[in-house]
Amino acid sequence: MPAKKLGRSTVKFASPPIIVGTGTVVGPVEGKGPLASDFDVVLPDHAYGERTPEKSETKILEQAAKIAIERAKIEKSMVDYYMAGDLLNQIISAGYSARQLSIPYFGLYGACSTCAMSLALAGMVIDGGFADYVLVACSSHYQTAERQYRYPIELNIQRKTTSQYTVTGAGAAVLASSGTGPKLTHATVGKVVDLGLKDVHDMGGAMAPAAADTLLTHFADTGRGPKDYDLILTGDLASFGSEMLKELVRDNGVELGANYRDCGLMLFDTKSQHVGAGGSGCACSAVVTFGHVLKEMEKGTYKNVLLVATGALMSPLSCQQGESIPCVAHAVVIEA
Amino acid sequence: MPAKKLGRSTVKFASPPIIVGTGTVVGPVEGKGPLASDFDVVLPDHAYGERTPEKSETKILEQAAKIAIERAKIEKSMVDYYMAGDLLNQIISAGYSARQLSIPYFGLYGACSTCAMSLALAGMVIDGGFADYVLVACSSHYQTAERQYRYPIELNIQRKTTSQYTVTGAGAAVLASSGTGPKLTHATVGKVVDLGLKDVHDMGGAMAPAAADTLLTHFADTGRGPKDYDLILTGDLASFGSEMLKELVRDNGVELGANYRDCGLMLFDTKSQHVGAGGSGCACSAVVTFGHVLKEMEKGTYKNVLLVATGALMSPLSCQQGESIPCVAHAVVIEA
Repeated sequence: MPAKKLGRSTVKFASPPIIVGTGTVVGPVEGKGPLASDFDVVLPDHAYGERTPEKSETKILEQAAKIAIERAKIEKSMVDYYMAGDLLNQIISAGYSARQLSIPYFGLYGACSTCAMSLALAGMVIDGGFADYVLVACSSHYQTAERQYRYPIELNIQRKTTSQYTVTGAGAAVLASSGTGPKLTHATVGKVVDLGLKDVHDMGGAMAPAAADTLLTHFADTGRGPKDYDLILTGDLASFGSEMLKELVRDNGVELGANYRDCGLMLFDTKSQHVGAGGSGCACSAVVTFGHVLKEMEKGTYKNVLLVATGALMSPLSCQQGESIPCVAHAVVIEA
Repeated sequence: MPAKKLGRSTVKFASPPIIVGTGTVVGPVEGKGPLASDFDVVLPDHAYGERTPEKSETKILEQAAKIAIERAKIEKSMVDYYMAGDLLNQIISAGYSARQLSIPYFGLYGACSTCAMSLALAGMVIDGGFADYVLVACSSHYQTAERQYRYPIELNIQRKTTSQYTVTGAGAAVLASSGTGPKLTHATVGKVVDLGLKDVHDMGGAMAPAAADTLLTHFADTGRGPKDYDLILTGDLASFGSEMLKELVRDNGVELGANYRDCGLMLFDTKSQHVGAGGSGCACSAVVTFGHVLKEMEKGTYKNVLLVATGALMSPLSCQQGESIPCVAHAVVIEA
């Protein structure tokens, strides 16, 4: 067994990396939600002065990254690596933002699990002695994701009850080998889980089994349970997926109680805002975690948070070819 | 400066991870090239019994991964992490292969630089104490890449002199914390470089500046030069890009001599095979390195190899929107 590993899939950092700065940018709909005041920038509209939504997504990712570096009180040149990802083909938002930042770059693809995946890898790279500062970031955009994955937004297609709303936003964080702030103590890396579901309008349902697998693995590897955390947070299972997760883990003897919440449900007022079953997208867990949760940890509301970010790894083409939706979930523990 | 870092972008592993097993699968055109006898499997045709080329690409990636695990003489359950990537939207070849392998999974996107990027990250994760075995793999496929990035192959569009041929193939390797075999000693992580080139039919030209940047950074960080390596290998700059690389580094006082070669030129007989300026794709550097170069190292032909794999990070959409091609190159040192 490797020195820093617990069980099949979990690592425990010897010197837990510190989150020393964060940056969050959200779109106009997120800016009318219950967490609005927690974000650094709220966009006036989806375009944000750019000619295409893809260019607007790159712009907000870059902006979130720059805010995180500023808050960390370091220079860009001190950042050892930039680890980023998004939902777009060839993760162009990450690639073009890396061009502007000019920091040695690792491109990651974990769909909506990217936030937790990047934290896990950044933690290993820092605790392994390869970096003092790693910048992690991810983004999504309602308009870019809808037209890539589903329909042109101009068609105004009627949505299903299980449809989710892709979050427009970007979240970034600087992790450091030393400093003050919340610490990354553990990471559980997920396997790809696919129960054969094929409905691209029910991402929460497709991803819930992956979340259950990673959550149960995390508890088995660490010997912990739901009561060991003030907050257990899934990324974007939304209303149906999070109920499904509760049932799936209950079948395995684990009860998720009031300390379980989903970022996709926290970010919006799902009753009054037209976001279907809740939010989704890479930015969903990133802005809620880096914007809201870390602020609450600073206030003392939470001491010990388990973030389980889920991602659906299909492409429109693989769905057209009759494939089901492979999903993954990565988990990280953040301690105040 | 972090304990294991040299200069801006290079890491030196304290206990260099060992490459304990590899697997390579190539397509029918690669199977008629000069390195054919070095590969584990040569496909009879591009379809390989599957209904779509995308399914065929997933199949060869999975096959290469399984061969690498077998050669490493370990069980699949002993592999701590699977790190993989490919060129397709949402890296579906990697995602679906991860579903079949059921190993904790990190999805990577570095376009054709993925091979070196995955080696760099796997090295950090193993040397950092988080894994005993990491499986890295990547794939590309002539038919899937052409129709995604350029034109439907049925159109038989006339190609430009600078056009390259996407390699059909997959390469995988198991890295371990101990064992016998070639060692991964250093990794230099690249920045995104974009000189404003926009011709998607000249990938080698677009990527050469990124290769030059990483190569010069590697030499500056390590205090080494071209003479310190028996072989300096670029991934897929092909005939025009590799000439451009030589000129770019010459302008900086570095002369690349007979020990410099390009995987895209080694894999084919560019005179008799219709592959344009040479090979490209994630699989290009992976099959040449894992199939050919490591075998030559075993024979004693090479002792010290520097692999610089380059990737072009644009998408068809970003090109349509007038963006130029952002490129990246990652380098790793393999010692016999």
